[in-house]
Amino acid sequence: MQEPAIFCGNASPKLAAAVARAVGGRLAAATVERFPDGEVRIEIAETVRDRDVFIVQSTAPPVNDHLMELLAFADGCRRASAARITAVIPYFGYGRSDKRHGRREPIGARLVADLLQTAGVGHVITIDLHSSQIEGFFRIPVDGLRAVCALSDAIRPVLPPDTVVVSPDVGRLKMATEYAERLESSVVLLHKTRESGTKSRVTHLVGDVRDRACLVIDDMISTGGTIADAVQRLLEEGARPGIFVAATHGLLLAGARAKLSSASIAGIFVTDTIEQPVERWPAVHAVSVAPLIGEAIQRVTSGQLVGGPL
Amino acid sequence: MQEPAIFCGNASPKLAAAVARAVGGRLAAATVERFPDGEVRIEIAETVRDRDVFIVQSTAPPVNDHLMELLAFADGCRRASAARITAVIPYFGYGRSDKRHGRREPIGARLVADLLQTAGVGHVITIDLHSSQIEGFFRIPVDGLRAVCALSDAIRPVLPPDTVVVSPDVGRLKMATEYAERLESSVVLLHKTRESGTKSRVTHLVGDVRDRACLVIDDMISTGGTIADAVQRLLEEGARPGIFVAATHGLLLAGARAKLSSASIAGIFVTDTIEQPVERWPAVHAVSVAPLIGEAIQRVTSGQLVGGPL
Amino acid sequence: MQEPAIFCGNASPKLAAAVARAVGGRLAAATVERFPDGEVRIEIAETVRDRDVFIVQSTAPPVNDHLMELLAFADGCRRASAARITAVIPYFGYGRSDKRHGRREPIGARLVADLLQTAGVGHVITIDLHSSQIEGFFRIPVDGLRAVCALSDAIRPVLPPDTVVVSPDVGRLKMATEYAERLESSVVLLHKTRESGTKSRVTHLVGDVRDRACLVIDDMISTGGTIADAVQRLLEEGARPGIFVAATHGLLLAGARAKLSSASIAGIFVTDTIEQPVERWPAVHAVSVAPLIGEAIQRVTSGQLVGGPL
Amino acid sequence: MQEPAIFCGNASPKLAAAVARAVGGRLAAATVERFPDGEVRIEIAETVRDRDVFIVQSTAPPVNDHLMELLAFADGCRRASAARITAVIPYFGYGRSDKRHGRREPIGARLVADLLQTAGVGHVITIDLHSSQIEGFFRIPVDGLRAVCALSDAIRPVLPPDTVVVSPDVGRLKMATEYAERLESSVVLLHKTRESGTKSRVTHLVGDVRDRACLVIDDMISTGGTIADAVQRLLEEGARPGIFVAATHGLLLAGARAKLSSASIAGIFVTDTIEQPVERWPAVHAVSVAPLIGEAIQRVTSGQLVGGPL
Amino acid sequence: MQEPAIFCGNASPKLAAAVARAVGGRLAAATVERFPDGEVRIEIAETVRDRDVFIVQSTAPPVNDHLMELLAFADGCRRASAARITAVIPYFGYGRSDKRHGRREPIGARLVADLLQTAGVGHVITIDLHSSQIEGFFRIPVDGLRAVCALSDAIRPVLPPDTVVVSPDVGRLKMATEYAERLESSVVLLHKTRESGTKSRVTHLVGDVRDRACLVIDDMISTGGTIADAVQRLLEEGARPGIFVAATHGLLLAGARAKLSSASIAGIFVTDTIEQPVERWPAVHAVSVAPLIGEAIQRVTSGQLVGGPL
Amino acid sequence: MQEPAIFCGNASPKLAAAVARAVGGRLAAATVERFPDGEVRIEIAETVRDRDVFIVQSTAPPVNDHLMELLAFADGCRRASAARITAVIPYFGYGRSDKRHGRREPIGARLVADLLQTAGVGHVITIDLHSSQIEGFFRIPVDGLRAVCALSDAIRPVLPPDTVVVSPDVGRLKMATEYAERLESSVVLLHKTRESGTKSRVTHLVGDVRDRACLVIDDMISTGGTIADAVQRLLEEGARPGIFVAATHGLLLAGARAKLSSASIAGIFVTDTIEQPVERWPAVHAVSVAPLIGEAIQRVTSGQLVGGPL
Repeated sequence: MQEPAIFCGNASPKLAAAVARAVGGRLAAATVERFPDGEVRIEIAETVRDRDVFIVQSTAPPVNDHLMELLAFADGCRRASAARITAVIPYFGYGRSDKRHGRREPIGARLVADLLQTAGVGHVITIDLHSSQIEGFFRIPVDGLRAVCALSDAIRPVLPPDTVVVSPDVGRLKMATEYAERLESSVVLLHKTRESGTKSRVTHLVGDVRDRACLVIDDMISTGGTIADAVQRLLEEGARPGIFVAATHGLLLAGARAKLSSASIAGIFVTDTIEQPVERWPAVHAVSVAPLIGEAIQRVTSGQLVGGPL
Repeated sequence: MQEPAIFCGNASPKLAAAVARAVGGRLAAATVERFPDGEVRIEIAETVRDRDVFIVQSTAPPVNDHLMELLAFADGCRRASAARITAVIPYFGYGRSDKRHGRREPIGARLVADLLQTAGVGHVITIDLHSSQIEGFFRIPVDGLRAVCALSDAIRPVLPPDTVVVSPDVGRLKMATEYAERLESSVVLLHKTRESGTKSRVTHLVGDVRDRACLVIDDMISTGGTIADAVQRLLEEGARPGIFVAATHGLLLAGARAKLSSASIAGIFVTDTIEQPVERWPAVHAVSVAPLIGEAIQRVTSGQLVGGPL
Repeated sequence: MQEPAIFCGNASPKLAAAVARAVGGRLAAATVERFPDGEVRIEIAETVRDRDVFIVQSTAPPVNDHLMELLAFADGCRRASAARITAVIPYFGYGRSDKRHGRREPIGARLVADLLQTAGVGHVITIDLHSSQIEGFFRIPVDGLRAVCALSDAIRPVLPPDTVVVSPDVGRLKMATEYAERLESSVVLLHKTRESGTKSRVTHLVGDVRDRACLVIDDMISTGGTIADAVQRLLEEGARPGIFVAATHGLLLAGARAKLSSASIAGIFVTDTIEQPVERWPAVHAVSVAPLIGEAIQRVTSGQLVGGPL
Repeated sequence: MQEPAIFCGNASPKLAAAVARAVGGRLAAATVERFPDGEVRIEIAETVRDRDVFIVQSTAPPVNDHLMELLAFADGCRRASAARITAVIPYFGYGRSDKRHGRREPIGARLVADLLQTAGVGHVITIDLHSSQIEGFFRIPVDGLRAVCALSDAIRPVLPPDTVVVSPDVGRLKMATEYAERLESSVVLLHKTRESGTKSRVTHLVGDVRDRACLVIDDMISTGGTIADAVQRLLEEGARPGIFVAATHGLLLAGARAKLSSASIAGIFVTDTIEQPVERWPAVHAVSVAPLIGEAIQRVTSGQLVGGPL
Repeated sequence: MQEPAIFCGNASPKLAAAVARAVGGRLAAATVERFPDGEVRIEIAETVRDRDVFIVQSTAPPVNDHLMELLAFADGCRRASAARITAVIPYFGYGRSDKRHGRREPIGARLVADLLQTAGVGHVITIDLHSSQIEGFFRIPVDGLRAVCALSDAIRPVLPPDTVVVSPDVGRLKMATEYAERLESSVVLLHKTRESGTKSRVTHLVGDVRDRACLVIDDMISTGGTIADAVQRLLEEGARPGIFVAATHGLLLAGARAKLSSASIAGIFVTDTIEQPVERWPAVHAVSVAPLIGEAIQRVTSGQLVGGPL
Repeated sequence: MQEPAIFCGNASPKLAAAVARAVGGRLAAATVERFPDGEVRIEIAETVRDRDVFIVQSTAPPVNDHLMELLAFADGCRRASAARITAVIPYFGYGRSDKRHGRREPIGARLVADLLQTAGVGHVITIDLHSSQIEGFFRIPVDGLRAVCALSDAIRPVLPPDTVVVSPDVGRLKMATEYAERLESSVVLLHKTRESGTKSRVTHLVGDVRDRACLVIDDMISTGGTIADAVQRLLEEGARPGIFVAATHGLLLAGARAKLSSASIAGIFVTDTIEQPVERWPAVHAVSVAPLIGEAIQRVTSGQLVGGPL
């Protein structure tokens, strides 16, 4: 039986290295770079013949480049006779494109699922998909890991005792409930409706936050708008300033810092599914998912069960 | 250009006949029956060569028999050189199996999508899928029609002027909003959470129903449990008795009548996506989706746009 | 190397348990049941990751439910990363639908073959297919076992010494020859032709049965009509009463008992490919194919040869 | 709408030309030849873009060369944007390889079916497949034409009034019955069994041929052995010399002439599915299937029904 | 019959508009943009149901973004029931990745071909592929147009009468010959070999350039290195300064201007397969391929022949 | 782990036996023959269940028969549950059909690649493909071995010290360079161009051969025309008679002997990828590629790297 090979592209080199350490190995050698015209150039520097290959690559921005790296890497491994190719995609881009919103548009997440399978990927490990139906976009096995546990453990020590968990919309209610169960807290829900006869939307708050500490959770922080709106609404409802935020995927796009650098936000906890620039602002704390992924890889290579819904 | 052929299986003969009338035609001739051992027997009695074929068949209970009829019918049409096979599935069974809930289980809706494509189906027309992501389970085009408009029109004349639309859980909030917009009403949300430290769930009511008339909506009524719980909760919150119910798919399984035959329920509006037995109880009103499907078929055969999310 | 996992659905629980015992193991744990609306619910209770999975399930009546259970089970195993999924289908339903009989109809056996492969089945073990061409409907390997040996061994002690083997039509001539070779007997053939100028069919008897004991064989007994006709014809030709019947698959549908409970029929031997109700009538003897299947599974898991035509 | 294009390879140029005439057209222009090393060279000399293409090519000996011509021609048409490619295969080679006879061997007919579909063939028209299950080896529509009618019409004028139709084995019983119905005759069956305790086979004759004229039918005449054996057996049973033979596919391999040039054989009727060499012996009469195929093509291009079992 | 729809992404808006004008129509309406995180957002603003769709999009830099736009656009059209989706890819990126150069690496051009087909593309129109074998990477029809004619016509008026056509390496010899035939000129070949016992490469010049005017041709100008080397070598061999350059695809990456802005280069002719920035330097002349593509689209939609090798 | 099984068809029995010896085993038992009508008959005489199967078969003339043997053998192995099927194709026929040369023609090499994959081949080992892009015609891994090393070693002892390596056209320049590097020689190139205004082609010689010994190399010798032309041109340019020829694939079709039996040709070195008839003329020396293939098989079965471009 060959030793598994863990590779990485340019999206997640630090996380991949940590994963390799977590499974007691090292990253396998490969060159992943760009030609002058931007085309992906891959050279796999060690044999993958009949080996179990793991390619660790978030499809984080620049999403199309990182996706193409992943596809090309899988193609190279397939042509080099890899036994099985597992795409470890800590952050799965295009996840929000899981249904048509208008009349005629692509379903990006399904398209990406098809592209991965076309390139030779035979198994996917990912963390906190935007919607759990995305697993059904694949024909191949998908092991969906959850970062709630790791984030809860990291955030528990700093949370005030009476904190409530806030779901910023109905789509995150299930995740909020998971946090609340781990933190022995309760859930508060924000949701928007449009009043009859008007065009403006009203944000309802279901539950009581007056003079309570709050932990706003989400699966990702993109531009920061959703979180900023939630924080403002909670404060209007009398929540105690010093609100905490937890989100698995910290995209933290340009502009997010401005929106979230408020005195009312005591701390933002994300994971390293998105490689963070060094100059990140002080309020952001990154929890590593390397142990979580490492354990999954060990279970895969030893034929044990992995992840799935709680 | 050949005339389209509209066929039906045993799930939806009345609806199919109404659809055929709606497009100014008749049902094409076929035998769909069972051998003594229960195997499906199909004989297509008129040519389908190079014709656009529509098979109208809800995958309603007995779901596996109706599904197999649909698959076998498509296989027969493919082998008989049909130009294109459109499965018109007013009620799409296995829709609630759109994700894994436990560790190891099938994803029924994706499986059904794959089976349909394997059998030769090249296009799907359906109504009010349980979740909109199911469209992404297909590679082929899916035209998702909405019954909100037809049901709203049918229910508007009997609704008291101050009625609020009630979503029985967060999953139906979008549908409730569509009803509210059509009925110029507002939305009330019921949702359950588990309080910290306990095992029991509490149903929150978001909005005000005191002395208001209520219209509880859902995509389907199966055993009637969800609706019965919602009605009880609304009454506890002071809603006015005489509550209306609207749901696209009236499965109305055994036991549903007992649960829903309350004096507090003034009327239940469903569509004919599920063929209703004649002895249905008086409170149930069925609105036909035949015009909706007929219009979709006419647009398909004339190359125009159909349905999609609002 | 992982231990193989043998599962069963609701069609063949007793046989599956016997198979598991035959290979020195136990049935792997899973829940296979129905939701109130009849949809199949599967929960696989132990890991199948990288294991060789065998799902024992005859597609016996109710054939569509049992088929859907099998498809859904395979889908669940595939998503849970099973190494290889073998469908053990002792009785393969839709086997008689192996060609088109009229102008436009499905070919059910090919459709089922495609559905199984779509669901993730990678290998099939079955017994006495209705026609051997069905193997060619699959792209995947099919191990076709034969029950002639087991049935011959069971029936030999009770057969009078001068028994002839009777094929009830030309389609079973090959199987009858196999029985005759094992029982050191000779073959008598019944076959029907239509005389010129008439519509009625005449049954020819090829061979001599006068004052001979007879063993009528067939691949399956469905409504019992074919066997009853053969017995009557044999008696008309002077065969000795006390005729024996052997058939691999004892569907024994409603009405079969009435047709076959004649004083002239001394005994009916079938196998347990169809789970028999406890209240079966005394003339029916069931021979287990569990050792046959058990041996096949052991050969598959140890990479040895299995079955095929004699 | 483009005019259909009828092409031919080297197997059936005369038949193809007759088919083109039958549909009121001409053969489309193409070069089909061999390079010095035996590789097939195809050049399609007129546009096929968006045209319905028919390639008339029996996979007669040299079967592998003719098959490869057909596959390459289809590939060329697909790459040249043909709208639909119909392989018209009057004689379908590898038809007898429709099941495994031993433990480990290919199923040639299924393999050929897969190869055709891989090359881009989307529809098949063929005549008198060796077994009707072969249609199920294809996913694409197969129009199976029958030559019984054409052959019966040709042979009727020369048949003595009391002729019986002889099936040389049980596999041709259905075809013999079709001949008998058209010729208002009756069927006699030859079939072989092995007697208990011996290794030699005995040929049974079911029916009466004493002093009767006989028409032995088969789907094909290959080496002539089966027919020669049948004729000899019939004569032993007292049949009147001057026996007629009818078979759809006259392969008439080397040696067949010696076997079938007996004074007892009055005439051999075949069709032109196999292109016959000019020096054929006088007893052989070829009936053209060009009208049959021509009608099928006209129905296909006008979207009407074609063929299928009687 | 529906009117064809010509769309474009962000790679080739000007060319696409010119193509639409060339076929006497207008660009169909669609939004193709990026979400803040860089994911592609597509909204197709008019119906494509049963229409022939053409998506004009060079996979020019940023190649991965433009490729993903094209894939997503095709997915959207497929889901919206387009009759046929033709990707018009004037410049086909990843074309140089048409074989493995090292031991383990992807074959980018084959991967892109597979991705396009997965997304629903059914036909490709492209211009001057880097190697003609790339057409064989596709299963679908590829119409390969040639820009030699358009470029020759544009460059002929300015060329001195005694100009020779120079192929900068052996891979372009065929293209150089085509130019020479159109320009009634002759071909000179540059090619590099490594001398025995050394590591340095020597560039051979086959033909005579002394005091001759030269036209260096290539399929693309990327960084300009190959062209600059060729020009220098020609001057060393005594070629007349004022050398012309012609290349189909003017990538003209950063640095190309510096390399090619020599007094010895009299003019550079490229086409608009790559959208050129407005501030292009004066020596560059862009010849439009819009008439060429427009004619191809008209032939496709009228079912006529298109392009192919000369 | 099962022992690998090495089979052969009728194209390469001697080479296959040598390969089996090279890996320390024996050829696995199988019958590969023809039915009287020319159809391939395969019977695999030992188990292949879960074994790594290698089928050694050049697709040499008669190419279509040998190809069909290979396809049928793979189909038989797949149906017999082989773990993985590797086609070892020392000479890959249809390799020169790697692109369309005219407007409408097949791409034979891609078609063959598709057929192999359809038949169940999962891996290909081949030697000196006509163009390296052919690897991209496959989705499955291709290990492309090179015979340059073996041929160089065999030819080195007989070469005069000042020999130059001659590429007979630009397509073989890369291979010639490899020879030159191994033989510490330099490369001379022949290439043809058409002069302006004329139809005749002129063969240029790039490099100096006057009074030098020459080794003309090519990937294959088919009719011998290319080599004979090259030899004549070299002699015209003053090359020393006694020219050597090296080519991987010695097809040596009828007529080749006449063309190449010149006093000026001192020796022709080929390999045994093409089984040579015993009566081969004395000038031809065959170098075995059995060690090369044997090493590749050992590496495949032990999961190590194989071949690839130098």
